[in-house]
Amino acid sequence: MDMNRLNQQLRFLVEADKLKTILRRSTLICDKDRLENDAEHSWHLTLTAMLLLEYVPDKDKIDLLHVLKILIIHDMVEIEAGDTYCYDNTGLLDKEQREKEAAAHLFSLLPDDQKQELLSLWEEYEEQATLEAKYAAVIDRIQPLLQIYYSDGNTWLKHGIHLEQELGRNRIMEEMTPGLWEYAKTIIQDAFQKGYLLE
Amino acid sequence: MDMNRLNQQLRFLVEADKLKTILRRSTLICDKDRLENDAEHSWHLTLTAMLLLEYVPDKDKIDLLHVLKILIIHDMVEIEAGDTYCYDNTGLLDKEQREKEAAAHLFSLLPDDQKQELLSLWEEYEEQATLEAKYAAVIDRIQPLLQIYYSDGNTWLKHGIHLEQELGRNRIMEEMTPGLWEYAKTIIQDAFQKGYLLE
Repeated sequence: MDMNRLNQQLRFLVEADKLKTILRRSTLICDKDRLENDAEHSWHLTLTAMLLLEYVPDKDKIDLLHVLKILIIHDMVEIEAGDTYCYDNTGLLDKEQREKEAAAHLFSLLPDDQKQELLSLWEEYEEQATLEAKYAAVIDRIQPLLQIYYSDGNTWLKHGIHLEQELGRNRIMEEMTPGLWEYAKTIIQDAFQKGYLLE
Repeated sequence: MDMNRLNQQLRFLVEADKLKTILRRSTLICDKDRLENDAEHSWHLTLTAMLLLEYVPDKDKIDLLHVLKILIIHDMVEIEAGDTYCYDNTGLLDKEQREKEAAAHLFSLLPDDQKQELLSLWEEYEEQATLEAKYAAVIDRIQPLLQIYYSDGNTWLKHGIHLEQELGRNRIMEEMTPGLWEYAKTIIQDAFQKGYLLE
């Protein structure tokens, strides 16, 4: 057995522990005093992807294993680059560069073949050029939408988010999962009616 | 679109949020003041399963998608049944019954076909009769072993765990991943030398 290779893999898995401390802006639904972290969020996305695949009209063309791999690693760069809020226009300016450097550095802990695999999964997600990357992105919209809606809109209220921003952010569902997009519009409108989103 | 079906699925996904509050006995490596929760742990297992598959001599016979599905849902019954410590002999007496009832109840939130799928994934893991279930179990040993070893053995010390208990618990690696078992024995012996485990 190649002990050097195993040690590289385990070193990476120990480093991965840090994803449990990278906080998002949304809270738990069942504990609104605590922010969700990236590891919990990533797990929740994999479960969501397993259960909602039927809403993709082209679902037979989607490799679910590939989707899960993307979701498992998609936020890991935030261990080094931090979480950038999706409505933080200043933070978004250099997000791409920061995350590229973080990905190159973080995945370099792994043996070269696995470094290449994870880097290419991450790039695929960023580039949004495959069905799997697009479905993963839909899942990465619907889970936060539910998370905030069922937390009485707390994160939207705290950051003063507008109806049009939230509709715009979720519109990527329209192409891949038209049924989920119809549903999302309904709850976003309901959130607006309830006063969770600004006009 | 069947709105009743979608509402059942989303209701289940909202319920799943609670897994983020089910605490394990081990801490984070990078924050030894905080216990790890089941959602974080489940995410860490899926990443580990992705990266260590090569250590299964029969790896070509393993359906990694199936392994990931098992790992994603394997601890969800603890939302209702709570976490039972692997060395808690009293808690282990009725664990099986408590978890069976929890699985039947929790997965019943889903449409019937998905309820059956998740229930059967969970039962497969419990029964340990397939290669996928066995590989998932190996992953569910190696991650906690690393987690505690790299946290200076804190969880073992707190609960007074003995060398033989930890060797016994991890011996299931021997059949599926002999290389990882050799490695695990080395770090368990090292943990004993360091005083993390009792004689």
